[in-house]
Amino acid sequence: MRAVIPYKKQNAKSRLSPVLSLEEREHFVELMLRDVVKSLQDAGIKKIDILTTPSNGVPHDLDVNIIFSEYDLNEAINEYLETVHEPVIIIMADLPMVTPEHIVDISNVAEDVTIVPGKGGGTNVLFIKNPDKFRVKYYGSSFLNHCNIAKEMQQSIHIYDSFLLSTDIDEPHDLVEVMLHGHGASREYVTEKFDVKTGKARVKLCM
Amino acid sequence: MRAVIPYKKQNAKSRLSPVLSLEEREHFVELMLRDVVKSLQDAGIKKIDILTTPSNGVPHDLDVNIIFSEYDLNEAINEYLETVHEPVIIIMADLPMVTPEHIVDISNVAEDVTIVPGKGGGTNVLFIKNPDKFRVKYYGSSFLNHCNIAKEMQQSIHIYDSFLLSTDIDEPHDLVEVMLHGHGASREYVTEKFDVKTGKARVKLCM
Repeated sequence: MRAVIPYKKQNAKSRLSPVLSLEEREHFVELMLRDVVKSLQDAGIKKIDILTTPSNGVPHDLDVNIIFSEYDLNEAINEYLETVHEPVIIIMADLPMVTPEHIVDISNVAEDVTIVPGKGGGTNVLFIKNPDKFRVKYYGSSFLNHCNIAKEMQQSIHIYDSFLLSTDIDEPHDLVEVMLHGHGASREYVTEKFDVKTGKARVKLCM
Repeated sequence: MRAVIPYKKQNAKSRLSPVLSLEEREHFVELMLRDVVKSLQDAGIKKIDILTTPSNGVPHDLDVNIIFSEYDLNEAINEYLETVHEPVIIIMADLPMVTPEHIVDISNVAEDVTIVPGKGGGTNVLFIKNPDKFRVKYYGSSFLNHCNIAKEMQQSIHIYDSFLLSTDIDEPHDLVEVMLHGHGASREYVTEKFDVKTGKARVKLCM
């Protein structure tokens, strides 16, 4: 089995711009990538591909394969799926709360396709046992898209229920979750940079 | 083991007021309660207590015990914990996506206290094996409060990671999750009432 992480660094995470500058966001995106790669490695995944464009620098010290593509996310991954002939886990780079245990759990699922939903109808992780019998359709209600594609392709489905994996880090309030439930380099960065404000309602970020 | 559900119907869920009237919110809150009770019952929990105030009507056809308290949430539950002498699961009434499998899983956890985090530092479910060795402190960063209280009381802790249980239904965008991942009466209500709008970003509710 192998893993692939789509990665975009340049001007990434613009919705975090109220609390992080462009430079800080690009640095933070790299820290999140490092945490995702580390959890995959600690789960025993040896073949890790990072799918990116030539203009998006992947740190040189990461023990990963870098695959360049100029296509958009869906085209790039679907082209990738045609080249791999083994089970593949597609995991987003903005999931720094992923743990090795999540990866091991997901890789042990019996069904053909495991879908980890993100908030708002998204898909945060996909584990595809037969890459020739699946294609991706991210954006919009990708969770429903992926359920439908698996059904069309007669692949059995498992929905993996995880708060930590449902939380992709897009908006300032997501950083609170990294502080409370994260680990590694991204948690360290957020904890050093921000404080939290507690009141009667949900915890809020403050600078 | 038994379960307790704190319940407030009157003027509940004011943050849903942009999309639901007072009457609709009170109706929806009751449907969510029904879904939570049903999942507990389907998981084999026979002793279900609903903790409420005399002015908050609990539907008469539910097979539950009703306990009235005029105290605030923390005082009411802590008083309750002094009266029970068996493992107790405290579950919020606004978690209609809970399934019987979640309840069975949680009741099988080996540790003394199971904490199911909600978004923004909240606590959505607590399973307390030794109610005489725990007290609750909801509001604000209750997740951290409950971790600290368990440590002070020398109770071992398990953090239960669930997207469906992390999603308490407070705001309009939470209703999207009920449509996509829910079941039962609350899902039926939301699905009949709303449609969703899909674009490139997260799925949005539309009326």
